[in-house]
Amino acid sequence: MTDVAIVGASMTDFGKREGEWIRDLLAEAGENCLDDAGVAPHELDHLYVSNMASGEFEGQAGVPNMLAHDLAAIPAYTQRVDQTSSSGGSGVYAAWQSVASGASDMTLLVGGEKMTHRTTAEATDVIASLTHPVEYKHGVTLPSFAGMTARLYLDQYDAPRESLAKVAVKNHKNGVDNPHAQFRKEIDVETALESPVVADPLRLYDFCPITDGSAALLFCSVEEAEERGEPYVRVAGIGGATDTHVVHERADPTTMGGVVESSEQAYAMADRGPEDVDVAEVHDMFTILEFLQCEGLGFFEQGEAWKAVEEGVTDRDGELPINTSGGLKSKGHPLGASGVAQVYELVMQLRGEAGARQVDCEVGLACNVGGFGNCVTTTVLEAER
Amino acid sequence: MTDVAIVGASMTDFGKREGEWIRDLLAEAGENCLDDAGVAPHELDHLYVSNMASGEFEGQAGVPNMLAHDLAAIPAYTQRVDQTSSSGGSGVYAAWQSVASGASDMTLLVGGEKMTHRTTAEATDVIASLTHPVEYKHGVTLPSFAGMTARLYLDQYDAPRESLAKVAVKNHKNGVDNPHAQFRKEIDVETALESPVVADPLRLYDFCPITDGSAALLFCSVEEAEERGEPYVRVAGIGGATDTHVVHERADPTTMGGVVESSEQAYAMADRGPEDVDVAEVHDMFTILEFLQCEGLGFFEQGEAWKAVEEGVTDRDGELPINTSGGLKSKGHPLGASGVAQVYELVMQLRGEAGARQVDCEVGLACNVGGFGNCVTTTVLEAER
Repeated sequence: MTDVAIVGASMTDFGKREGEWIRDLLAEAGENCLDDAGVAPHELDHLYVSNMASGEFEGQAGVPNMLAHDLAAIPAYTQRVDQTSSSGGSGVYAAWQSVASGASDMTLLVGGEKMTHRTTAEATDVIASLTHPVEYKHGVTLPSFAGMTARLYLDQYDAPRESLAKVAVKNHKNGVDNPHAQFRKEIDVETALESPVVADPLRLYDFCPITDGSAALLFCSVEEAEERGEPYVRVAGIGGATDTHVVHERADPTTMGGVVESSEQAYAMADRGPEDVDVAEVHDMFTILEFLQCEGLGFFEQGEAWKAVEEGVTDRDGELPINTSGGLKSKGHPLGASGVAQVYELVMQLRGEAGARQVDCEVGLACNVGGFGNCVTTTVLEAER
Repeated sequence: MTDVAIVGASMTDFGKREGEWIRDLLAEAGENCLDDAGVAPHELDHLYVSNMASGEFEGQAGVPNMLAHDLAAIPAYTQRVDQTSSSGGSGVYAAWQSVASGASDMTLLVGGEKMTHRTTAEATDVIASLTHPVEYKHGVTLPSFAGMTARLYLDQYDAPRESLAKVAVKNHKNGVDNPHAQFRKEIDVETALESPVVADPLRLYDFCPITDGSAALLFCSVEEAEERGEPYVRVAGIGGATDTHVVHERADPTTMGGVVESSEQAYAMADRGPEDVDVAEVHDMFTILEFLQCEGLGFFEQGEAWKAVEEGVTDRDGELPINTSGGLKSKGHPLGASGVAQVYELVMQLRGEAGARQVDCEVGLACNVGGFGNCVTTTVLEAER
């Protein structure tokens, strides 16, 4: 197995990108990533695109071929990676495999989604079509799963409703310092608690927005990265796993089996444990998911993540900063881009280039969740300076 | 790089599968493939699904998670691979990478598409959305590219119109002996030449049909395959490459750059050349494509494949049998399944289990074409008995 490095990273501004399309967003992130690494497009062997639904959202297929054209990367091999809301994390896994297997010496991954030209209801319905038909036909969408699970969590672990609001407050605060974030404004607990109900007990500020955006990463062997003589990030461990596709089949919906399983794989490969992680990006599509992932990843005991948030442990200046980027909550969630942008944030942190968001770190972890935990990828990254 | 073997293979009947959906087709192929190998679902580490457009055709996303559920393969990692009409070949590449990289010890690949519930015009439009906008907006679809290229080929190489019809005749003849083929009837040259014009000079019998179907393959290391003690097929070489996304940018549209490039990669890895290939499955979505690929793969000189067909070289009892399965022409072309079904045919041939279609062979080659050659994968397989 070839040891794999990340030698380039970029992300576009996330938000409402009027007049632009998936094609424009991918090209912007892809070009900037190549520039970041000082690599020319003709050096690429493979080019992966993480994207859930360009066909459903725009009636546009063949997006990877379009990107190979726009980047002048032909004849690089290209392919689309879809794993619904964790398409980005799956793209990281695919790009890692392409280098680790020896199939490619230089692989560019670009994740992106263009969504805001559709109404929130339309976009939510496209996303809901990933759920199992036995749940979908009863009108279940991902936000409704989140509401039910939040209620269960609060009850089961005696957690105060405010603790969920505090996730939103923390992530909004982090987002203020992220120039690419969709929302760069602080909110307070009261604002979050008084916002409109979406899926009781969850309210507007417990949800990430609908977003346009793209992010990119460049992968090669550690050997090649060493020869380049620039700081880089090593993919120390990576893993992926599914949980039940029918959410109500889970013995305890507050346990995310895919998070547990994929992180165990990633920790084992990295020869690391949760205690070694200095900074993490988790998939806070809904505030409750930040608790469930922090527990599944082993950062905190089951039912105790809410206490860590209350105590400021996961703040930027806390012991284990979570979502320094602002998370999906304030940064935005362009499906295929999100898992790639998580790793972008960690690359910036591990290279010491995160500006006002910088924390002290050597080891970072990204957890990207598809559906309501139906498929999860976890990546452990280490700084090499 | 771990040496990779294929230890299981299956395909469903291809054709009009009324009352069934992508979910049913994938589960059927997946179960039969596991049965073929005698492997239990819990032994799977990774599960890939090759599929272009379940969202556009059925409004169904998250198909890989559905399949993990239906096969009882949870917590296997799962992901969708899309590379338009060559999604199947890209799936083979992805599954190969998963084992070659050491990420997975046992990977199931299932390719499939459900299309016939949509009209041919609707399906053609979904497929056409893979073309570059500068061509799409002029109403260009893949059949029209085929017509223009066929005219050029016939003119440039002084080939008779009948030679294209003879590709269809040969592949229909092969399909008669394939119990899974959509069309199991012989046709003659006159029937092909007198069928309705679709894209001049090409007529109905120069085109593959719209099809529902699925196929599956099981991958593990050669070491594991050896321990099992059963005949298996070794993936000796594999490669993938793009050609210009804008078809009219090609210096000579009768040369398929992606075929040339991807096959060079596959031959180099296999330490083989075109002269070593005993049997091949090529992507005869249109009859003209069989000529272009046979030349790009190095089987015949540029502009001479038509002579080989005229002389019977590519017949089942010829020197180099092409499309013993019946090809996309008579077997059908369920987009995401086709590249997987090509390899299924070669696995049957190389295991000596192809029944009435059996030819004498040790080395097989599959060439799967996305779009009009926009992205191509080539795989070289060797028998290990």
